[in-house]
Amino acid sequence: MSAKYEELLSKAQRAKESTRRLSVLSSATKNRALRAVASSLRENQRAVLDANEEDYAEARASGMNEAMLDRLLLTPARIEAMATDVLSIVALPDPVGQVFGSRTLANGLQIARRRVPLGVIAAVYESRPNVTVDISSLCLKAGNATLLRGGKEARRSNKALATVIQDACRAEGIPDGAVEFIGSTDRALVNEMLKMNKYIDLIIPRGRAELIRLVAENATMAVVTGGIGVCHTYIDKTADVDKAVRIVDNAKVQRPTVCNALDCVLVHKDIVGEFLPRLARLWESGGVEMRCDPVALETLRGGGSGYGVPASESDWGTEYLALIAAVKVVDSLDAALDHIAKYGSGHSEAIVTDRYSAARRFLNEVDAACVYVNASTRFTDGSQFGLGAEIGISTQKFHARGPMGLEEITSYKWIVMGSGQVRE
Amino acid sequence: MSAKYEELLSKAQRAKESTRRLSVLSSATKNRALRAVASSLRENQRAVLDANEEDYAEARASGMNEAMLDRLLLTPARIEAMATDVLSIVALPDPVGQVFGSRTLANGLQIARRRVPLGVIAAVYESRPNVTVDISSLCLKAGNATLLRGGKEARRSNKALATVIQDACRAEGIPDGAVEFIGSTDRALVNEMLKMNKYIDLIIPRGRAELIRLVAENATMAVVTGGIGVCHTYIDKTADVDKAVRIVDNAKVQRPTVCNALDCVLVHKDIVGEFLPRLARLWESGGVEMRCDPVALETLRGGGSGYGVPASESDWGTEYLALIAAVKVVDSLDAALDHIAKYGSGHSEAIVTDRYSAARRFLNEVDAACVYVNASTRFTDGSQFGLGAEIGISTQKFHARGPMGLEEITSYKWIVMGSGQVRE
Repeated sequence: MSAKYEELLSKAQRAKESTRRLSVLSSATKNRALRAVASSLRENQRAVLDANEEDYAEARASGMNEAMLDRLLLTPARIEAMATDVLSIVALPDPVGQVFGSRTLANGLQIARRRVPLGVIAAVYESRPNVTVDISSLCLKAGNATLLRGGKEARRSNKALATVIQDACRAEGIPDGAVEFIGSTDRALVNEMLKMNKYIDLIIPRGRAELIRLVAENATMAVVTGGIGVCHTYIDKTADVDKAVRIVDNAKVQRPTVCNALDCVLVHKDIVGEFLPRLARLWESGGVEMRCDPVALETLRGGGSGYGVPASESDWGTEYLALIAAVKVVDSLDAALDHIAKYGSGHSEAIVTDRYSAARRFLNEVDAACVYVNASTRFTDGSQFGLGAEIGISTQKFHARGPMGLEEITSYKWIVMGSGQVRE
Repeated sequence: MSAKYEELLSKAQRAKESTRRLSVLSSATKNRALRAVASSLRENQRAVLDANEEDYAEARASGMNEAMLDRLLLTPARIEAMATDVLSIVALPDPVGQVFGSRTLANGLQIARRRVPLGVIAAVYESRPNVTVDISSLCLKAGNATLLRGGKEARRSNKALATVIQDACRAEGIPDGAVEFIGSTDRALVNEMLKMNKYIDLIIPRGRAELIRLVAENATMAVVTGGIGVCHTYIDKTADVDKAVRIVDNAKVQRPTVCNALDCVLVHKDIVGEFLPRLARLWESGGVEMRCDPVALETLRGGGSGYGVPASESDWGTEYLALIAAVKVVDSLDAALDHIAKYGSGHSEAIVTDRYSAARRFLNEVDAACVYVNASTRFTDGSQFGLGAEIGISTQKFHARGPMGLEEITSYKWIVMGSGQVRE
């Protein structure tokens, strides 16, 4: 433990030390390094795949399930996608140095806010090795140092990727410490990291709910939490039923394993007879399990369908990440708003309606990162929203909410230019 | 403890419950309530002064020092100033509902970010009773609920002020829970508050460094830290000496007990002979103690002055909050930047120079909330910067940095308006 702790400490310190130089790197230098990272990922594809094969074999032997194995697996195409993603970050504007909110005060002082990097961003993540590349590339573009601590199951893959990134950065004159990778996957080290507010400015946990909770409750520095989405779509009584079925189906089925996928359909009682049997026919053939409240179940039975099973209390507020949806019939918009306030996780919530007043109230009153009218919640994504890339999706309200791109991993400083002003 | 804990818990829950209604209050309603608070402060002046007299008598009997006693004291003029400050918040634009970053995506989705309240803001503060009014008024204007926990020494004054605010709010239809005040000053309750991330979205500690550290390290919710300022002013070799003396004197003397006051003067060696004896003459007559490094001391002695005492290592990085300043001679701009990087607290830092390149490097490289060229650091203040009022001055980089006004106690949500869009 002690040697591992020393390694962690020295890497955190090195990351912190690099921030003064990182913060003043030109965009040209940062982009050159990112292009080198992309090239190097392509050139070193074999070494990365070899490391990944070892991780994969070990994980399979340990009995990891297919979904997790798929997340762990790297292929030539997936490595090429990583390289392409890095190049897409090159193409984004550099947020550092952007000036906003400028004004000249009555006494002649010129004040403005100027974007600066946050400093050292630590990531504690599980499974998907592409996080190693995503986070370090975004951080580098925004002038931040990165301290990476990936999961045990992907340790060889992450190490190989981090080495590729570090070598490319070094060759392009990026200061040492800009991308630090913790080799040990000892769990106790995470607790040590959480105490290092002297060196780490922000920590991002990505993985299971327990990991996120552990980090949020014990970190002594700022945390961005997210990645948990209990997402509702409410079908109002005036909804266009064709659109409603298409939107709900897309939100559930297009990619069920991600946080912006639908978990619960709320249906107004006046439209349930028209809407629900159509959805049930589609989902019966598509293999989506429907966990229904008594009124929804009765509606299906009344419509001659044997599809759907009873929901239990624990279905409300559950994130399934699978082809399962809870279904509940509500008497009013207010009942839908109350349900979402009680069970939503503040990620993405949608209404399908043609009532202006209902859309307005839903947008005003739902407290979530992303609130939709007549669209699929699957759009909650940095690249869909035009941010180019994202470091994660925040479900907290502090600092940034929803998809977090480059701007959201910066801070600002006030710059004040005078000609001798003093305060009266 | 248990009854006190129950009181805290029920107040925190009530604050949280109020946020749904608070978030959709009209600006007119919030402003009407704030005007009622201002009127009520004037009408209930006697009751507040009576409560303060008891606090003051007890504090004096316990041997509290004069500076602290002065911070505790309320007078008719100070209560009138509180009422005026509340009315100045009425005059500020309501940040809630402001839309920014709007765009229409290629698929026709219209997305934008809309400002919303943060939720429940807790304040743990010491001494000055006006914080009770400042924080609750700012929070109400931005649609946030407030959970107040003031210091023991001002408990009667704070309770009287909170009662005035609560009664005025209730009469104007502000939901119960919008302003909650914890009567008990049991220290253990602060630790309990820090665990209540289910009910509290942000906690603001205001007071001594130990209190701020306790909160920052143990809070399970977001924290805004600040209020500690180790502020440097660097006199470059090309500085206009008249301006330099005036700026440094203003930064130290105009109000020495606040966080943006100067603590350390750094002087370039080429200008020290001209600058320092003039400053010493001014400060000798003004009673400002100068703690000098060996070169500075030698300069003063060489100039025939017996003023100035030797600095010790602990003077670098000290916030004095008194008529004391550390003085150090540096060989170069780089040495000044290094000193500030090592000893600054990230609050306010200034350079006095007529070199464009030095000003540019100082603005770019100093990592602080506010960076000045040719002006006094005393300007770091929400109302000086045109924010109208401030909830505090953040020295962290996350969420907000420097003076925090109304906008800085809001979050945003993404609103997405479609016509049936689904993700391909």
